[in-house]
Amino acid sequence: MADANAKIPYSLNSKKVAEATRFWLHKRGVTLEEIAELVMLLQKKYYPNLTMEECVHNVEMVLSKREVQNAVLTGIQLDVLAEEGKLLSPLQDMIENDESLYGVDEILAFSIVNVYGSIGFTNYGYVDKLKPGVLERLNDKTTGQIHTYLDDIVGAVAAAASSRIAHRKQAEREQELGHPHAPEDLEEASRKAAPEKEKTQPE
Amino acid sequence: MADANAKIPYSLNSKKVAEATRFWLHKRGVTLEEIAELVMLLQKKYYPNLTMEECVHNVEMVLSKREVQNAVLTGIQLDVLAEEGKLLSPLQDMIENDESLYGVDEILAFSIVNVYGSIGFTNYGYVDKLKPGVLERLNDKTTGQIHTYLDDIVGAVAAAASSRIAHRKQAEREQELGHPHAPEDLEEASRKAAPEKEKTQPE
Amino acid sequence: MADANAKIPYSLNSKKVAEATRFWLHKRGVTLEEIAELVMLLQKKYYPNLTMEECVHNVEMVLSKREVQNAVLTGIQLDVLAEEGKLLSPLQDMIENDESLYGVDEILAFSIVNVYGSIGFTNYGYVDKLKPGVLERLNDKTTGQIHTYLDDIVGAVAAAASSRIAHRKQAEREQELGHPHAPEDLEEASRKAAPEKEKTQPE
Amino acid sequence: MADANAKIPYSLNSKKVAEATRFWLHKRGVTLEEIAELVMLLQKKYYPNLTMEECVHNVEMVLSKREVQNAVLTGIQLDVLAEEGKLLSPLQDMIENDESLYGVDEILAFSIVNVYGSIGFTNYGYVDKLKPGVLERLNDKTTGQIHTYLDDIVGAVAAAASSRIAHRKQAEREQELGHPHAPEDLEEASRKAAPEKEKTQPE
Repeated sequence: MADANAKIPYSLNSKKVAEATRFWLHKRGVTLEEIAELVMLLQKKYYPNLTMEECVHNVEMVLSKREVQNAVLTGIQLDVLAEEGKLLSPLQDMIENDESLYGVDEILAFSIVNVYGSIGFTNYGYVDKLKPGVLERLNDKTTGQIHTYLDDIVGAVAAAASSRIAHRKQAEREQELGHPHAPEDLEEASRKAAPEKEKTQPE
Repeated sequence: MADANAKIPYSLNSKKVAEATRFWLHKRGVTLEEIAELVMLLQKKYYPNLTMEECVHNVEMVLSKREVQNAVLTGIQLDVLAEEGKLLSPLQDMIENDESLYGVDEILAFSIVNVYGSIGFTNYGYVDKLKPGVLERLNDKTTGQIHTYLDDIVGAVAAAASSRIAHRKQAEREQELGHPHAPEDLEEASRKAAPEKEKTQPE
Repeated sequence: MADANAKIPYSLNSKKVAEATRFWLHKRGVTLEEIAELVMLLQKKYYPNLTMEECVHNVEMVLSKREVQNAVLTGIQLDVLAEEGKLLSPLQDMIENDESLYGVDEILAFSIVNVYGSIGFTNYGYVDKLKPGVLERLNDKTTGQIHTYLDDIVGAVAAAASSRIAHRKQAEREQELGHPHAPEDLEEASRKAAPEKEKTQPE
Repeated sequence: MADANAKIPYSLNSKKVAEATRFWLHKRGVTLEEIAELVMLLQKKYYPNLTMEECVHNVEMVLSKREVQNAVLTGIQLDVLAEEGKLLSPLQDMIENDESLYGVDEILAFSIVNVYGSIGFTNYGYVDKLKPGVLERLNDKTTGQIHTYLDDIVGAVAAAASSRIAHRKQAEREQELGHPHAPEDLEEASRKAAPEKEKTQPE
């Protein structure tokens, strides 16, 4: 900020934010498939025909949301800085040791779940308690790695993807029953979809 | 529930939920235009070319979200029952008198704001404090009508619509700058849009 | 409201709100001991010496919070009205059938958990998913009773009590380690405690 | 973490967390009096006799809560790192420029407001929009300092202190009316107060 005159004026680049989200999840050792496995664990009971492909896809859609990207990037940043010992005491100690009375990681996780509504609260708590699959690995405190934020974030993305599936499956069910309705926030959907097809014509 | 055998098995009808939301807002005296005026008040400073038509449209999109519909219907229901004196004391008294230490109305309002992310928190609080336009009328305690929930809900819908506009305007800006990106949750958009094309009756 | 002149001016009576909370939990068939059992289930792993008496006590303290009382009374009210078939369709149907895409019950539950901080999110989701003890009974859909809100509320009270225990146990631990600190919000504690000394009947 | 054997086992020291919170607020240029002025601005209309001393005191009580301390420390940490240019792009750019579509700062602020219940939502949004007093200074983008988190946090502490005052004033009012009730979470209060009496050095 010292030499502001020399700087290119700031302008948010959403594509970079989206790409950084993918990059950092990968760099911290989490694959979309692993998150999708949590989704499958949470949802197969309700939708026996649910495929892994659908789960991966729903995880991707959750990760395309800016609110989610902001939480992922902020959480991983704090994990990385804690791992490097660069945070100030006592915050460094609390994040490094996943202090049980430190709940800012849960707060960020919750902002992710919220994007797809309150129906995801339960699924988030459930996986965060049981720590199945990738969450067990992220919680291994013997590796020297710090994932205080990331483990909650991964559970939250899986819970949000589960909520997304629940909403979509209901829409499919209603269509089969013959009473299709205007989808939620349709106009956005159609406008959003349109430019992708043409690409030359801006929205 | 007494004669369960005679009942048609329950199946959520999303269209009815959406229609009831519109119906009850109207019946309780709130027009989409009035909510849109709150949106204009909140956003015209940032987007001088914003039109009332856009504001109405964004309000409609917010109201198409199920999470929003659930909160609207639940809140209005409690207002109506309080107006009819049918709630149990002391809940009846607290809602009837818009008790300042009763905050469940704010909680429902917040679930609406949250759907479009945390950037709407500020706008919600601002209109809820200043009570401009329709909110002033809903807060008039001399009419015999009770809008303890509705006034917070209307402010929340306006705040959510403002967040929606902020997200969309950014996407437009980036397209003009020549770095368009895949919109958020695009695939949902295109799948959702698809069935609509087959329908003869648009939304 | 029709004959406002004849009315005694409204004034919040906090004692009545607290008493009504206890009364309605009891009337809807939930004992404090049952909620305490959920707390024990959640916390015994971390505090092997935790007693049922402590758990009951912490549940009582959670229930003494006004924010909690407001949520309990509002949720039970909606359950009771749904049981009596007095809500308007389609809200009646959604609450009567514990519709999985209706999440206002979770939202109210969350406002309870939040009072003792974000560390309770996980415990809430866990019991809400597994439905142990009293939660299994509240979820029995064959009784004609409707507990769509109450089951989430009971889980939330148990999660909040667990958070409260975690905070207190840490304070005890630090005192044993010889670095006691000023308790949180102490002055409130001492001022609050003071009037009680003058009363002949302690809590 | 590399030389774990040499480390003193981690144990949360609550006093240090509380002290660091005070230290960092001060170091970042925010006095308790300035936050108290926001409280006065928000509450004097309702309580004409409210003194600055009471406002400062209520701010102190809010800051004694661990949930609040965690949010303050985490937010200031991110501000400081952004000021030093040590965050990873694009998070660095978003926090440095107080990007309007980045809402994690609002999320942390909200976790502060929530501790004293939903009645504080409105006050938070109001001051965050109008940016009176200290908030105007924190929002001055020409200083080279970055307070993306801190300005929201300060507004949230003021809103929470306002909620605390509202709860206490109601308790006082009821005592004057002759129907005092057991205060909220009393037992905690008395137990908490007790050890303080034995201490020679009060808070």
